[in-house]
Amino acid sequence: MLDNLSATKVSGGWHKQYSHTSTSTHCPMRFAIFLPPGASQTNKVPVLYWLSGLTCTDENFMQKAGAFKKAAALGIAIVAPDTSPRGDTVPDQDSYDFGQGAGFYLNATQAPYNTHYNMYDYVVNELPSLIEQHFPVTDKKAISGHSMGGHGALMIALRNPKSYTSVSAFSPITNPIDCPWGQKAFSQYLGDDQSQWANYDSCELMKKAHSNEFLPMRIDQGDADNFLVEQLKPDNLTAVAKQVNYPLTLNMHAGYDHSYFFISSFIDEHLSFHQLYLQR
Amino acid sequence: MLDNLSATKVSGGWHKQYSHTSTSTHCPMRFAIFLPPGASQTNKVPVLYWLSGLTCTDENFMQKAGAFKKAAALGIAIVAPDTSPRGDTVPDQDSYDFGQGAGFYLNATQAPYNTHYNMYDYVVNELPSLIEQHFPVTDKKAISGHSMGGHGALMIALRNPKSYTSVSAFSPITNPIDCPWGQKAFSQYLGDDQSQWANYDSCELMKKAHSNEFLPMRIDQGDADNFLVEQLKPDNLTAVAKQVNYPLTLNMHAGYDHSYFFISSFIDEHLSFHQLYLQR
Repeated sequence: MLDNLSATKVSGGWHKQYSHTSTSTHCPMRFAIFLPPGASQTNKVPVLYWLSGLTCTDENFMQKAGAFKKAAALGIAIVAPDTSPRGDTVPDQDSYDFGQGAGFYLNATQAPYNTHYNMYDYVVNELPSLIEQHFPVTDKKAISGHSMGGHGALMIALRNPKSYTSVSAFSPITNPIDCPWGQKAFSQYLGDDQSQWANYDSCELMKKAHSNEFLPMRIDQGDADNFLVEQLKPDNLTAVAKQVNYPLTLNMHAGYDHSYFFISSFIDEHLSFHQLYLQR
Repeated sequence: MLDNLSATKVSGGWHKQYSHTSTSTHCPMRFAIFLPPGASQTNKVPVLYWLSGLTCTDENFMQKAGAFKKAAALGIAIVAPDTSPRGDTVPDQDSYDFGQGAGFYLNATQAPYNTHYNMYDYVVNELPSLIEQHFPVTDKKAISGHSMGGHGALMIALRNPKSYTSVSAFSPITNPIDCPWGQKAFSQYLGDDQSQWANYDSCELMKKAHSNEFLPMRIDQGDADNFLVEQLKPDNLTAVAKQVNYPLTLNMHAGYDHSYFFISSFIDEHLSFHQLYLQR
């Protein structure tokens, strides 16, 4: 059951927030959806799933990306989930990069996190089912995200290539097993057995991708991003892509940082990129 | 002296925040400026001043309006001041609609507010002087704003028609002397002599406007705005405009509310409106 929290007209369409009790994360989850003008049961639209970064909720992208004008023109719905389970019963740490706001889009295996921290199941299965049941959308799906959410988008697309038409990311963590953010999260959510970490690492997953299931993949990265060298490491992923011939385009942008100002500068291009494949 | 607090590339231009000690408000003031790509001492650009609404700072418009792509294309700089003086030494009330965050763009005459609450002088005189001294801009200025800031834009343009090429507003308080927000603010900032209030009331000012100093004026208003009937009252201003033949266009929009989602839906049209006059 979906509880409608808000409904706001924007760019001729509607931005709406909902809450529901998740069977994946065993807590109330909030998400937001943008429905372009004209979306209806007789005119269903495809969906771009957007995964946000550390500390974010469903609101950051919707308020700051400036995506609605283009999405309205292209007829694409956008769904933004939260970045983790939330609430007093959900284990947390006093840390911006672990716990609430930092679910890393995986299924935790370690106590006390394994009850609630199942964002992989939530984003891959539960949320699309809910969206397709309750809104005028087709089953055509693309996926994108920023930073931790860029990791989520790439990793989820690589593991589920038949579920998405295309994948993109802004400033993604491309190789979490090889950076401090990813190591901190994976060691606590997944435990010390690093063989389990590879299931959530885009570089490792791309090495094993089947060429008949390759997806169009676009990444945009600013070269003035404070996290570029230590945490994001796009060159690690492009090296794998070159090795396996994965159709990855990495666009480096001089002078741009890690903020939503960067995302807002290029989100229209990402929407147009996905539209090429969503409309097929 | 300007203290640069941030510089972020966006839409090919730059978003920058500055702090300085104001001679008008006698406290540190923060403002933000967007400079479009290519702005330089040999290619100066005109400026749109944006005045925000209750509770806002320089950040709300810059983060949520989605204005930069269009402003970059048109070659318009945007300057967003704060909405009041700030700081521990600045008198305040525990109220969202009075005191800090609610300066109403006037010069207060009543103690204890009259030392710091001089946002009229700040926006009309001090800030443009600073901007024209420190940035690659021409002296061509337009002005716009939202809600309390819409009041500010209309009122300031009506009082200083030679300083601006054009004026626009989203969901403005058009007749503050006739609504609870305005009466609460004006009575405490300006005192009980209501003849003084008329100096800051757009309806009263428009009645006295000289026809040879009329400015192009555009207002956009959503009809699902919770504040429309009690606080904003655009019909009061259109009645005066009709009476004096002021060139005001009011666009009512079905289904839109008072939020930045509304602003983001129509900001491109406001920028194009101002560009018509800024480029002359």
